[in-house]
Amino acid sequence: VANGEAIEGMPINQLRRDPITGGWSIILQQQVDLSVLIAGRKARESDRPENHTACEYCSGHEAETSPEIYAIRRDGTSANSPGWEVRVLPYRSPVLQIYGDLNNRGMGMYDVLDGIGAHEVVVETPDHGVALPDLSLDRVADILFVYRERLLDLKGDARFRYIMVHKSYGEDSGPTALHAYGHIVATPITPLRVKEELINAKDYYQYKERCVFCDVVRQELGDQERVVLENEHFVAIAPFASRGPFETWILPKNHETFFEANTELKPLAEILREVLTRIRNVLNDPHYVLVVHSGPNLRAGQLRGYWKTLERDYHWHIEITPRLRGYTSFEVGSGFRINMVPPEQASRILRRNRPLLEA
Amino acid sequence: VANGEAIEGMPINQLRRDPITGGWSIILQQQVDLSVLIAGRKARESDRPENHTACEYCSGHEAETSPEIYAIRRDGTSANSPGWEVRVLPYRSPVLQIYGDLNNRGMGMYDVLDGIGAHEVVVETPDHGVALPDLSLDRVADILFVYRERLLDLKGDARFRYIMVHKSYGEDSGPTALHAYGHIVATPITPLRVKEELINAKDYYQYKERCVFCDVVRQELGDQERVVLENEHFVAIAPFASRGPFETWILPKNHETFFEANTELKPLAEILREVLTRIRNVLNDPHYVLVVHSGPNLRAGQLRGYWKTLERDYHWHIEITPRLRGYTSFEVGSGFRINMVPPEQASRILRRNRPLLEA
Repeated sequence: VANGEAIEGMPINQLRRDPITGGWSIILQQQVDLSVLIAGRKARESDRPENHTACEYCSGHEAETSPEIYAIRRDGTSANSPGWEVRVLPYRSPVLQIYGDLNNRGMGMYDVLDGIGAHEVVVETPDHGVALPDLSLDRVADILFVYRERLLDLKGDARFRYIMVHKSYGEDSGPTALHAYGHIVATPITPLRVKEELINAKDYYQYKERCVFCDVVRQELGDQERVVLENEHFVAIAPFASRGPFETWILPKNHETFFEANTELKPLAEILREVLTRIRNVLNDPHYVLVVHSGPNLRAGQLRGYWKTLERDYHWHIEITPRLRGYTSFEVGSGFRINMVPPEQASRILRRNRPLLEA
Repeated sequence: VANGEAIEGMPINQLRRDPITGGWSIILQQQVDLSVLIAGRKARESDRPENHTACEYCSGHEAETSPEIYAIRRDGTSANSPGWEVRVLPYRSPVLQIYGDLNNRGMGMYDVLDGIGAHEVVVETPDHGVALPDLSLDRVADILFVYRERLLDLKGDARFRYIMVHKSYGEDSGPTALHAYGHIVATPITPLRVKEELINAKDYYQYKERCVFCDVVRQELGDQERVVLENEHFVAIAPFASRGPFETWILPKNHETFFEANTELKPLAEILREVLTRIRNVLNDPHYVLVVHSGPNLRAGQLRGYWKTLERDYHWHIEITPRLRGYTSFEVGSGFRINMVPPEQASRILRRNRPLLEA
């Protein structure tokens, strides 16, 4: 049609469909200079020592925060004082607040709810500047235990359809930026990206009578070429239609719908810590986003009917996405992702575990 | 549940559902300092004069590009020489290439296509450093005419399910960064974000027997509080569930499925130019993304059945999103958008048309 020039000798890129979301990624086939991709990390404001002493997430600063919601602490220490290992707080600037009714209503043709929900912070260590890979296995398992506890508690509230656990490493600025913490956000509706996953997983099950995630696990353990790491209970993979360079998912090998049902905290801590360690070592300590994908809250009444097959359809997992570049306008508008590092290459690089930028 | 503190006197934010995509936005109700939001524009590398002289999109540099696909040019001038007003080229680094078959195939449980498609650039003016609001109405109408022509031509190719026209102002770097141009990308599958819109519009029609976009137009013309501008044929609004500050949509007042069916080029040029002028003046010349949302390619065989009601369900429009901030990890993971400027306020500010940052 268009009389553009043929591109002689250029490998043809692949369009790959993610069986989980139904989204497509364009996986580029030409070699890119990976050192350019990972060279961009800037020194952060929070590296400055004066910002360290002002961090309210540090041990000794407990009085500066709202009262703690939950903590793992040493015997004999009291709430809102030092002696804790993991500490859960209400987020300082929540966009959703905990008290009130949803007041689901129309405004002309439109639908509105009041911004009711919960937004908590899980401070993962009392020590400033310590990242998750620096912690012992027991400490990482403690953090996972706390996420589980908070999920179980928040799911007792039938107003909340979904509870999203996520971490954003390197994104924050200000005094708390270098303090390791995660977010828990409970929302009164199921987020669109989550809904996409749930609906696709349901459709897949209806068609094949198999869980799509179980099929992914089987396929990846068979192929091995996109496996990053595995242990007895979990596998870490670079997903087939990875939306960005070095995207990594951790999935339980056996079917399990809810993150909070997982009792294998130590093996999960082990694989999570090792994946994050390798991302840090190999990719020059990049910013990353980590999102726990768990099943929605079955107590939220309106979902009960629709998701009645959820427990066989859906399979929890963790998605880790290094933030190595921004999105182009085409990606934002279309939902297509363009990825210049094929997942087969990404997993090979993470398996090899050698820094891409040598000092 | 969680014993967070109540936030006394703080207005409750609103969760608003976008009837078009089914997505939800959290519209913050507290006042924010808008000057902080718009102060961030940096001087661009391409402002430097040495980059100007190297721009291949400038008149006089035609030999440096691939042969032109289409051009509006003065009588008597020949292809690939000066004398043009709008010029269409194959994009220099396309991620999808024009020649070949899709080779739709499975890889184990996964689906793969070859990266076949088209990626063209529409150079909107021969003059470097001239932005769309600087052009005359006739020139802007010419640009819209060219987008229409390319859509009609590319839709002749049954391999392409969707053709996305988009512009990204301020995002490019290098010699061409300050040269006004847009992209046309033809893809062999319907992008996920487009599909969401099409499916929601279809569901709405099935339920109400009315086009959701026609309902939006009626509601907004009635309310007036989110209208930015209007003329006889078009209306520009800040959408009810705006995903970001100052997001603006331009819709035809009468039902029309395809952008390329629009014959009112002059009134569209008028409202588009005025919206972009106001965004530039009021918001300190921000980066923005503009995406034309038109119906998919009905010639792409596999869609014919599914979209057989498309012409009554769907209504083309243009979405303009100023890029005033990045997305947080919560927004990326959930699909929720958090918007600190309610659309009622945004449209008031754009109607008033006074710079937010006074010199």
